Amino acid sequence: MSKQAFHTDIDVLDTELLQPLQGSRKTFVEGTRDIRVAVREISLTPTPIQGQQENVSPAWERNPALRVYDTSGPYTDPDVNIDLYEGLPAFRKDWIESRQDTQILTEKSSSFTRKRLQDPTFSSTRFRHNRNPRAAQSNQNVTQMHYAKKGIVTQEMEYVAIRENLVRLNSHYEDTQHPGESFGALMQQEITPEFVRDEVARGRAILPNNINHPESEPMIIGRNFLVKINANIGNSAVTSSIKEEVEKMVWATRWGADTVMDLSTGKNIHETREWIIRNSPVPIGTVPIYQALEKTNGIAEDLTWELYRDTLIEQAEQGVDYFTIHAGVRLPFIPLTAKRTTGIVSRGGSIMAKWCLAHHRENFLYEHFEDICEIMKTYDVSFSLGDGLRPGSIADANDEAQFAELRTLGELTQLAWKHDVQTMIEGPGHVPMQLIRENMEKQLSSCGEAPFYTLGPLTTDIAPGYDHITSAIGAAMIGWYGCAMLCYVTPKEHLGLPDKNDVREGIIAYKIAAHAADLAKGHPGAQLRDNVLSKARFEFRWQDQFNLGLDPERAQSYHDETLPKDSAKVAHFCSMCGPKFCSMKISQEIRDIAQVQSEHDTVRMIDVEAELAAKAKEFKDQGSEIYLKV
Amino acid sequence: MSKQAFHTDIDVLDTELLQPLQGSRKTFVEGTRDIRVAVREISLTPTPIQGQQENVSPAWERNPALRVYDTSGPYTDPDVNIDLYEGLPAFRKDWIESRQDTQILTEKSSSFTRKRLQDPTFSSTRFRHNRNPRAAQSNQNVTQMHYAKKGIVTQEMEYVAIRENLVRLNSHYEDTQHPGESFGALMQQEITPEFVRDEVARGRAILPNNINHPESEPMIIGRNFLVKINANIGNSAVTSSIKEEVEKMVWATRWGADTVMDLSTGKNIHETREWIIRNSPVPIGTVPIYQALEKTNGIAEDLTWELYRDTLIEQAEQGVDYFTIHAGVRLPFIPLTAKRTTGIVSRGGSIMAKWCLAHHRENFLYEHFEDICEIMKTYDVSFSLGDGLRPGSIADANDEAQFAELRTLGELTQLAWKHDVQTMIEGPGHVPMQLIRENMEKQLSSCGEAPFYTLGPLTTDIAPGYDHITSAIGAAMIGWYGCAMLCYVTPKEHLGLPDKNDVREGIIAYKIAAHAADLAKGHPGAQLRDNVLSKARFEFRWQDQFNLGLDPERAQSYHDETLPKDSAKVAHFCSMCGPKFCSMKISQEIRDIAQVQSEHDTVRMIDVEAELAAKAKEFKDQGSEIYLKV
Repeated sequence: MSKQAFHTDIDVLDTELLQPLQGSRKTFVEGTRDIRVAVREISLTPTPIQGQQENVSPAWERNPALRVYDTSGPYTDPDVNIDLYEGLPAFRKDWIESRQDTQILTEKSSSFTRKRLQDPTFSSTRFRHNRNPRAAQSNQNVTQMHYAKKGIVTQEMEYVAIRENLVRLNSHYEDTQHPGESFGALMQQEITPEFVRDEVARGRAILPNNINHPESEPMIIGRNFLVKINANIGNSAVTSSIKEEVEKMVWATRWGADTVMDLSTGKNIHETREWIIRNSPVPIGTVPIYQALEKTNGIAEDLTWELYRDTLIEQAEQGVDYFTIHAGVRLPFIPLTAKRTTGIVSRGGSIMAKWCLAHHRENFLYEHFEDICEIMKTYDVSFSLGDGLRPGSIADANDEAQFAELRTLGELTQLAWKHDVQTMIEGPGHVPMQLIRENMEKQLSSCGEAPFYTLGPLTTDIAPGYDHITSAIGAAMIGWYGCAMLCYVTPKEHLGLPDKNDVREGIIAYKIAAHAADLAKGHPGAQLRDNVLSKARFEFRWQDQFNLGLDPERAQSYHDETLPKDSAKVAHFCSMCGPKFCSMKISQEIRDIAQVQSEHDTVRMIDVEAELAAKAKEFKDQGSEIYLKV
Repeated sequence: MSKQAFHTDIDVLDTELLQPLQGSRKTFVEGTRDIRVAVREISLTPTPIQGQQENVSPAWERNPALRVYDTSGPYTDPDVNIDLYEGLPAFRKDWIESRQDTQILTEKSSSFTRKRLQDPTFSSTRFRHNRNPRAAQSNQNVTQMHYAKKGIVTQEMEYVAIRENLVRLNSHYEDTQHPGESFGALMQQEITPEFVRDEVARGRAILPNNINHPESEPMIIGRNFLVKINANIGNSAVTSSIKEEVEKMVWATRWGADTVMDLSTGKNIHETREWIIRNSPVPIGTVPIYQALEKTNGIAEDLTWELYRDTLIEQAEQGVDYFTIHAGVRLPFIPLTAKRTTGIVSRGGSIMAKWCLAHHRENFLYEHFEDICEIMKTYDVSFSLGDGLRPGSIADANDEAQFAELRTLGELTQLAWKHDVQTMIEGPGHVPMQLIRENMEKQLSSCGEAPFYTLGPLTTDIAPGYDHITSAIGAAMIGWYGCAMLCYVTPKEHLGLPDKNDVREGIIAYKIAAHAADLAKGHPGAQLRDNVLSKARFEFRWQDQFNLGLDPERAQSYHDETLPKDSAKVAHFCSMCGPKFCSMKISQEIRDIAQVQSEHDTVRMIDVEAELAAKAKEFKDQGSEIYLKV
């Protein structure tokens, strides 16, 4: 079947998406059992060691390549032929099959899916391969938590152990960093597969990898690992197309999204999701109630457990890796929101609240929670227990509605764990800085240390258009305190649907927050990238400085604006200060003197006069202004 | 003399700079003694109170205008005729003269200035009015600290007391906010002139208002007041012109810069500064060593106390309000930087270090510190004691070099206070989150609670191109812990000189950080703006939401991208979720029900079933979907 037979608006990806970020290449680290973990390697130029005289060619100090965590999947691997119509290689399939506890079903279990597949209206938008779904064999539980509790180290666990092990990945570098303040998190110098297994077994971390999403590269969410970020994409009734959403997913993982949530509420939700999952190298999360509501034409009152259940199965068999489920929006909590400044701001939360009020009945998600667990463990879908009552304004932060729901999420976590279903807990929202830590502490104590996954939080309401920044502040702080995953916020928050550029802005802001949190917690090896970049900066290796940054293109283009010439890329100054005022340049000169003196105790503070007099002489002797010729 | 006679490249300002921000107007609050404090008033639209039936026209709830702190000076006042060639009105002149302790000198005291004024080379770039400088009468001390210690409440003190008093300015609003965590800061419900005086007398706050800058509107920097932000502008040898710099100053104050530092190191430093000061409504800071170095053609070794002293006087007589002086870069501390990753990154610090090494002598700024105090108190220039040894990378944070200098700055603060010279202390730089608080605590204890003024700090090194964000995180945190002023960082940091757009990005990021800090400390009235904006957001008063934000234009343009129609500005949903999924809309419906029930105890959690059943009925009776017609 040729591509031309498809009438979707998906076309080939921009070639810019099929290149590694500048200055880097995809490489692989081998594990046991055919495990190949993708990492990004940033190559660096050597440092010229200045000769004292002009005619002598400089010696060179080699700067080894730096390996960093890579979320971009096969898109940045020139050896893989990307074809969106085929989807990514299902590389986890063999691992899943080797466990011999799953079966291939002969048809889709969801009646909605079956109808949809037969509806010719969607033939032009449908992903072309209709793969039969995989499910647990009867009486089997196929969650990573189930294996972990049985003492089994899966390939997925080993994969993430390699991936998280920044110290080992860069063992050619000396690891010097500040001690962290970890608030009880266990920062492991050596992350072993056994440690991963133990964390998953305890429920302190999750590996969201649906057996129907074998294209995904395993990753872990837990506070004893690197802080992760999620990017939301998805169309709405007002804007966007399948092509845009698939591109946003690729784009998001390119810049560093660890998971992607498809929050589509517009047209063709089922088909859009299939395209996204089949092409996604990272776990995909959804909020199934959105689609359920589409099926009732937007009438919350018409939602039923049966309809919702079919939607869960529909999405689980497509391969969604985690579901946001607002089972904690209990009927008695809804009046607690009545006096709020901004009421209920979670879409799923408000839908369920409306349902509860319309029927004056308890939330059916709460009542059917164990039925949901049965579905989750059949496909290994993880819970992301939604915070339907999260505050939507500073005024509403940390109120009784929020914490009442949080306690309920704690109860539900215990139920989920009884079924060995992996679980994380969603959190706010809008919280002023002084109230952020209380959120983290209450979550840990209420929810048995299940991973926390927060939206921001935004630390003020007064900057629409800049909420990636208001929230990056809160995200960095809560990440430091122990939050495992940070849901990004884009500059368009509260105003519109993010476009490609907004996705990039949001992701970089959140990569900053997550990394700042990793530094603060003292994740071993995290500071290495800062150290290597700062060395490049100090040595005027401009290209290395750009390439080591989170957004090499942006850094380079900013530099080019004022100093576009290639020679400026090796210049020992920049446009900010110009050659005479460059502190780095002067500082290097100071260090050169100190190095000459290194046999002496240069850091002694008493009686330094004599040494400094000698240094002063050397300083003048060697010409003082050695870089000004540049 | 006509404007045409001037050959500077300064032309009239863009008219966009001469309008208030959208939706707001300049207004004034009267004090005693002819004091008129400028505030910005954001007018709001009323809230329609939905009638139950369609044919009844809605009732309206009035939303009173919100008054916010205004840094923009006369530029946003349509009653003032702006003429850059004339400069702003010298409205503080009468106050200064009323104190009868100053004199007008018959000529400039700086020999450099005198020569410069006679040099025809600069006639085309020079500001046209050559005003004779004002100085203290002999044996008089004209600093605000001196008056404060004598128990005098100056007009400047009263001005800032009115300006800082958010609760009083908006007394028509109920003030509800979260309690702050103030770390020992004294958050006053009612900021009185006497409190201001006391804080200035103790040295816990400064009012940087040179008697030669009578155009400036008084403002205060101290941790018991609103957190302030500074914007750096200034040309370099590589780029920029006088016109650009004056425009950047006006632009910066428009978006909220509380002070502006002119860090020019390029051409015409003296003339550029004069244009900026004469037209600046906010205090101007400088780093005099930059110009001193220009006078030695960039040769640090050739700097002398005499040359530097003349530069201080030159700038003090122009009206610079605070000087960054790197007097703490002592000779014995320089070897402490030798093993750093990024050495000395302060330009002033590296210049002084080079001078010290070249002469193997103690820093002449340290040795002449009391001579400098004599100059400061003659014009009321405030010290901003420079942190020449601040860390330039995460690796170098909180090291011995930094803290050795900080202790020295503490000694110097005591000396400055002996002379009643107002003093603040500059701080880092690059600091991971877990080490930020130590900076604040050490500064308070070492420097007798003198205000702290930090550059960021950047919480990671790995995001060149986004350092306004890496640093806004650290800035918000240190502001919360007690930092009084935050020096902005723009997206161009480390890469190039900021242009107008970068200035805006940097300022908004820092307004966010400062406001987030005010919320966290619990500054009375600070949360009101969040509350008022969130109410507008919840009520779908889109235009009010935009106008209440820090950047109304940006918010509006983002909204317009996906929903450009005017009708969308009153729509009860936005492009993010579309009408069916709007949580705010659903939540309002929930609240409407609750309001009907308000005679009952709607927040009671026990036995809610009966109430909710009644509510469910009402909910259906009133049509459930009242907004969907929009």
